[in-house]
Amino acid sequence: MVARINEQTTVVLDGKLISMEIRSKIAAKVRQMKKGLGKVPGLAVILVGQRRDSQTYVRNKIMACEEVGIKSLVTELPTDCAVTDVQNAIMRFNKDPSIHGILVQLPLPQHLDEEKVLDAVCLEKDVDGFHPLNMGNLAIRGREPLFTPCTPKGCIELLIRSGVEIMGKKAVVIGTSNIVGLPASLLLQRHHATVTVIHAFTQNPEQITSEADIVVSAAGVPNLVRGNWIKPGAAVIDVGTTPVEDPGCEDGYRLAGDVCYEEAVKVASIITPVPGGVGPMTVAMLLCNTLDSAKRMLNFS
Amino acid sequence: MVARINEQTTVVLDGKLISMEIRSKIAAKVRQMKKGLGKVPGLAVILVGQRRDSQTYVRNKIMACEEVGIKSLVTELPTDCAVTDVQNAIMRFNKDPSIHGILVQLPLPQHLDEEKVLDAVCLEKDVDGFHPLNMGNLAIRGREPLFTPCTPKGCIELLIRSGVEIMGKKAVVIGTSNIVGLPASLLLQRHHATVTVIHAFTQNPEQITSEADIVVSAAGVPNLVRGNWIKPGAAVIDVGTTPVEDPGCEDGYRLAGDVCYEEAVKVASIITPVPGGVGPMTVAMLLCNTLDSAKRMLNFS
Repeated sequence: MVARINEQTTVVLDGKLISMEIRSKIAAKVRQMKKGLGKVPGLAVILVGQRRDSQTYVRNKIMACEEVGIKSLVTELPTDCAVTDVQNAIMRFNKDPSIHGILVQLPLPQHLDEEKVLDAVCLEKDVDGFHPLNMGNLAIRGREPLFTPCTPKGCIELLIRSGVEIMGKKAVVIGTSNIVGLPASLLLQRHHATVTVIHAFTQNPEQITSEADIVVSAAGVPNLVRGNWIKPGAAVIDVGTTPVEDPGCEDGYRLAGDVCYEEAVKVASIITPVPGGVGPMTVAMLLCNTLDSAKRMLNFS
Repeated sequence: MVARINEQTTVVLDGKLISMEIRSKIAAKVRQMKKGLGKVPGLAVILVGQRRDSQTYVRNKIMACEEVGIKSLVTELPTDCAVTDVQNAIMRFNKDPSIHGILVQLPLPQHLDEEKVLDAVCLEKDVDGFHPLNMGNLAIRGREPLFTPCTPKGCIELLIRSGVEIMGKKAVVIGTSNIVGLPASLLLQRHHATVTVIHAFTQNPEQITSEADIVVSAAGVPNLVRGNWIKPGAAVIDVGTTPVEDPGCEDGYRLAGDVCYEEAVKVASIITPVPGGVGPMTVAMLLCNTLDSAKRMLNFS
C-alpha cells in the first residue's frame, strides 16, 4: 500500500493507487480467462436520463472495464421512458450469455419505481448487490450474498489493506442509504465490529462518533464530520461526494466529502481523501464483482 | 396496558395480559372472516425431532391458534429425516390453499441445512419472516417485508404500547441471532432509533449498554445484564429464555432471562419479566402474521 505520510504520521490512503493494484490483478485474470476459454467477462450498464454526474460515473466505469479487458455495453434511455422500457433492457441482458453483470445507474428519474427496476436484475448478474435477496443474505449470519455492494466493499478493502483491525472495534456508520450506509453497517458487523448507525434523528452524533475507532461517513453533507468528532487515532473513511460550487475549479464545481479533511487529518491515524479515496475503490470493486460473476457462470477459477 | 407498579415506579410489562388483548382482537377478526367468507386462517407447523423445548413451543402455538379460531396443522418428522423430507412437507403446505402461514420450528437437528429448509417456504406464507427476501426487505429503506419476525415485532409492540418513544433514542441490541438480534436492530432502525449491536467481540458492553435508552437483550446468557449496565429510566426488554436447573421448580428447571431482574428492576423505568414478558408476545405476533397473511391471500380487510 502506498500512502503519503504527513507531519502527524496520519496515513492518507491513496485509493487511486490501491485500486490500480487491484485492477492490474483483475486484468491478469481476464487475460487468463480469455486465453483459457476464449471468453471475457461482460458488464451491461443502463443509464436513464441526462444527469451529468451519472454520465460521468458511467463513463468512468466503462473506461475501467476497457482497461482491464472486460467487455462493456451501455444502454441509454431517455428521462421520460417507462418502467417497462428499463425492465425490458434489463431482461435482454439477463438472457445475454455474454453479460455477467448488470448495473442500473442510480438515482433513476423520480417517476420510475426503483424497486421494480432493481428487482428485474437477475440475481446471478446483480453486481451492485442491491437486490433484496442479496441484501438479505448479506444481513443473515451463516449466509453469503452472491455480491456485496461495491462502495462498502471498497471501504472494507481499504481498511483491511491498511492493516486496520475491525474485530471488536467500535465502528460508526454515518448515513442509512441502501447503497452505502446499510450495507456498510452489515459488512462491518460481519467483520465483528461493534457498529452504531447514525442518521438524521440521532442525538449528539458528534459524541457517538468521537468514541469510534472506525468512522465510515456516507451522509452526503459536506464538512459534517469535524475534527472534534474524531477520536485520536481513528480510521476515517469518507464516502461523501457532494458537488459544491467552486469558481476556482475547471467545471465550476468540486466534489466535497462529508469529513472536514483539514481538521480530521490532524486527529485520525488513517483517512481517505475526496476525491481519490473511496471513489476509485468503488469502480475497482465493480470490476471485481463482474469478474467473480463471470468466473462463477463460466466455472473458471 | 395493565402493569404492576413497584416501589421505584418501574413499570413491569405484563406480556401475558397485553398479548391477551391482541389475541382477543385477532379472534374477533377471525370470526368476522369466517362469517364473511366461510374461511379461517390456517397455520402449518413443522417440527423435526424430539427437543422438549421445541415441543413445548409448538404446543403453545397450536393452543393459541385454537383459542382464536385459526386452523392449525402440525407435521412431525423424526430427528434423522432427510432435508428433502422437510422440504416435501413444506411444499405440500405451500400448495395447500387452506394454509396461509408455514412455520418450521427452529433449531433443526444439526445435520439438516437450515438455509435449504427455510428457503423452501414460499414467501407469501413465511409468517416467521426468516426468508432472506423478507429480511432484505426489512433492511432496505423504502421497502416493506411481507412479514416481520415475531419476537422482535413483539418487542417493538411492547415498547410502543408502553408509550416508549423510539425515534432519536439510543437503543442497544445484545445478540446477533438471525431470529431476534438482527431483525430487532433493523426494526429499531426503521423506527429511527440510533442502534448499536453488541456481541461476543464487543469491548465494554456494559459501558455501551449503560448509555442506552432502550435495551433489547437476546443473548441467551442468564444474568448477563446487571443493574449497573442499565441507564436509570431505560426501557429493558429481556428476550432471553435459557432453561436453568432449579430443584424448586416443577420440572426441575426454570426459564432465565438475560437480565438480572432483581437489580435491573430498581434502575429501569420499564422492564419485561421472564417468563411472561416477550414470550407471549411472540405467539401473539405469530397469530397476527398468520391473520395478515390470510387477509392478504383472501383479499379480506
